Order: sequence, then C-alpha cells, then structure tokens
Amino acid sequence: MPRYAIQLAYDGSRFVGYQVQPNGPSIQANLDAALIKMAKCPEGVTIPTVASGRTDSGVHALGQVVHFDYPAPMPQQAMQRALNALLDPAIKVVAVARVADDFHARYHAIGKEYRYRVDIGAYANPFKRLYSLHHPYRYDLDRINQALEAVVGTHDFTSFCSTKTDKEDKVRTVHLARVWEDRDQQELVFQFRGTGFLYNMIRILVGTSLQIGDGLRPVNELERLIQVQNRKEAGPTAPPQGLYLHQVFYEPSPFNK
Amino acid sequence: MPRYAIQLAYDGSRFVGYQVQPNGPSIQANLDAALIKMAKCPEGVTIPTVASGRTDSGVHALGQVVHFDYPAPMPQQAMQRALNALLDPAIKVVAVARVADDFHARYHAIGKEYRYRVDIGAYANPFKRLYSLHHPYRYDLDRINQALEAVVGTHDFTSFCSTKTDKEDKVRTVHLARVWEDRDQQELVFQFRGTGFLYNMIRILVGTSLQIGDGLRPVNELERLIQVQNRKEAGPTAPPQGLYLHQVFYEPSPFNK
Repeated sequence: MPRYAIQLAYDGSRFVGYQVQPNGPSIQANLDAALIKMAKCPEGVTIPTVASGRTDSGVHALGQVVHFDYPAPMPQQAMQRALNALLDPAIKVVAVARVADDFHARYHAIGKEYRYRVDIGAYANPFKRLYSLHHPYRYDLDRINQALEAVVGTHDFTSFCSTKTDKEDKVRTVHLARVWEDRDQQELVFQFRGTGFLYNMIRILVGTSLQIGDGLRPVNELERLIQVQNRKEAGPTAPPQGLYLHQVFYEPSPFNK
Repeated sequence: MPRYAIQLAYDGSRFVGYQVQPNGPSIQANLDAALIKMAKCPEGVTIPTVASGRTDSGVHALGQVVHFDYPAPMPQQAMQRALNALLDPAIKVVAVARVADDFHARYHAIGKEYRYRVDIGAYANPFKRLYSLHHPYRYDLDRINQALEAVVGTHDFTSFCSTKTDKEDKVRTVHLARVWEDRDQQELVFQFRGTGFLYNMIRILVGTSLQIGDGLRPVNELERLIQVQNRKEAGPTAPPQGLYLHQVFYEPSPFNK
C-alpha cells in the first residue's frame, strides 16, 4: 500500500490532545475517522496512523506530521481536499506527500521547532485566551535571551522535564532558543529548535524564563538548573494554550517538491 | 447614583449575542451578573445596563460601550479590575469612565465603526474559523474599493437591510467604506464608519462586495442597489464570525482623559 505523510495545523483548544483518549475528542481520533471514511473501509478495518509525537490537551500545531499507508494511490491535492472536507474545522491538512514505504513520522524526524506565545497586553485579550499565556508584567527581553543561551547545546534537561515521564535519558540537543517581541500583536514569542524535547520541557523553560525576565531569578539561572538536575528547583510549567508545535524537520523534507 | 460608561471587548463565538436571550449565554447577562455580584446587591435588585446597540450571535466587539448607574462611587481602575475578575474570560472591560448623569450609550453615540475580516488563505486557517469568513477566491481589491465609494454619503440602504427588521427609516450616512489587504495575516479587512447601520447592513455590504471583487457583479453594482431599494437584488449576508464592532463614537469621548 502506498505511504503518505501529511502536515497538520490544528487549534488544540477543544481537544484532549493529539492522542486518542477515553475522556474526550482527540486530533488522532478525528483524523483516523476521516481516513476510514475517505477510504470507504469495510467495518472494523482501520488505517493506522503514526504522528511525529503527541501534543497535550490545549496545545496547538502548525506543522504536525503524520504518516499512514493508504489502500490505493490517490493524487495529493485530492487527498488534501477530501480530508479537509471530512475533518473537524479546527484541524486542517496543509500539505500531503507520497513518501517512501519506510518513511516514519516519528523515527525519521531529525528535529522539531516549538513556539510559545505570551500575551503582554495590560488586560488579557479575550481573543487570545485560548492561544497564549497572559503575562502582563514588566520583563527584560535581553535578560531572557541571555539566559536562554545556556540552553543551546547538548545537556541533561532533568530540571526541565515533568516527573510524570518514564523516559530515562534526559539528554537532548537544543539548536536554537530565543524570544522576541511582536509589537503589532503585543506578544512575546519564544522559539525553540532541537533534536527532541522532554515532556513539558518547553513549558517549564518558558515558565522559568518569564521569572528570569521579571527579575525573580538571576540571569544565569538556566545554566544552574541544567547543572542541578532537579525539576523542583525550576519554575512553573507554563500553561498549554501558548504552545505550538511549529514544524517537524526531516532530511530531506517530504513536503518540499 | 453615579453613572459609569465602560468599553467592552468580547469574543462573541460562544454567545447568543449581546442581548439577553432565553436560549443561551449572552454578553449582557454575563455583565449584569458581574455587576450585581460586584455591588453585592440584595436579592432581586438589579443594575440596569444600556449598550450602544446589540451584536448578533457570533459577532465580536473591540469597543462596545455600555452605561449603568452604580450604587456608590468607585475608582475607575478598581471597577475595571473587579469586573474583569468576575466576567467570563471571553469578555474584557478595556476602559471605565465616570460620566454625566444624562450620558446615554445608545442615544449619544454619534457614529460607529465596524470591521469585517476575510481569511484569504488557500485553506481555511483553523485558528480563524470563529474569527473571519474564509473566502479564498481571486479578488480585485481596487474593484471593491471603487464600488464602495458609492456607499459613502447619505443614502437609503433598503437593499442592504435584513427584511427581518421593523425599522421604517432606511436612510443612513456612511462616512468611510473601504477594504485593504493585511498580507502578514493573509486577510482582507473591511472598514465601515457611519452614523449608524441597519440590521445586517455591514454583512450584506460585505457579501455583495466580495461578489464584485470576484467579478460576479459589475463595479457599479452598489450604486445600482442603492437605487433599486430591494434586498432581494443584493448579495448574500456574510456570516457573523467575521464581524467586529470596532468602536463607538461620542463627542466628547468619555474615555479620553
């Protein structure tokens, strides 16, 4: 069966997360149902899908990548249109690619980019409450960027990993960690690129960085936290609604023509 | 009792509209409940509120204005904070002003500005589905702007008024009617300013203007529709989710210090 990779954008605010859960609607369940309907599968037949990774409840995506084997070849644009007509309007297929039979959305990903949006307006913008963290306090962008330099490189990120994980290896490589102000939007935008990220890692990095920006922690705090390897010493986990899985990297990218 | 005017921004997507309705949550019911709670009114006592006008279900506001008489004087910033703590997070008080005892949010409004946002991306942006109309067709902005010139001035707007209204006088004065492209956002933004607008007037103007931009109607169509005074000859009513009550004008503005 031909293998396809698709790129998904989704507004995660009404979902329990990417992965199928018993307690509510998930991105994956919606996608799986759309695929079954599109392929007109006989009852009980499913089309297994594999994503680059999970996203939590309330977390958004601009470039989640999923692969699956489809019963028959289908033109890419026709597949994109058909899926978009069947999917919940909060989920959109933004690209489709026919890929090699051994392409794997998770194992072949060489890196990911996440962004985190912070609403810095004096009052919480009602249009952004599901799409950013409201944090109106004074902040020092240079301080945060200086602190984030310590994150770049290969480090043990135990301090920045939820204790609710069973992964033993906490070493990850971060290629890019920075923040800028989008004045038009009255937002701070954090950008992180790396080979992979631990559970809640971006959200703990953002929660801690904001405390550095507010002057509650010293500028060398991220460096110290990498050393101490203790989640309890880091800052709070920033809430999910500001987080976006921005892009997943493959070499070569299946979506570049 | 001292009179106050407040400016409200709200995400209308989960409300039945501004006005209290039996069939679901309204902006007004939420505001009234917050005022009663803030003032610690005895049971059965209410604080009547008057808005500049209604907005329909799904329609948003950046600058709705409401007035009410409050049992006791209260500092403006304290009132803003207290109300924002009590209101649904989709509704925010963005300004508070103590006003003269005869200030009237509806009768003293000398004009209003509405905006209408159109998502022109190739696929419907999942983050904008509740905040814009998706209309990805080819369009000619100059054509629309040329057509909109006919709207400016004092005219009978019967062709652009829902037949579900009981208002007899269909003459209104429009001061500004134009559209531009926001390339960063991949959006068209319509802007209308005038002394007042009929029921569904902006939405019918937008629905008809998009057909002009698509080449489905001639560029002098708005001029002709003003002449014929017949709703049936105008285009469709654009959906509510793209519409924003942007500002209400008073002379002088109660919110300029």
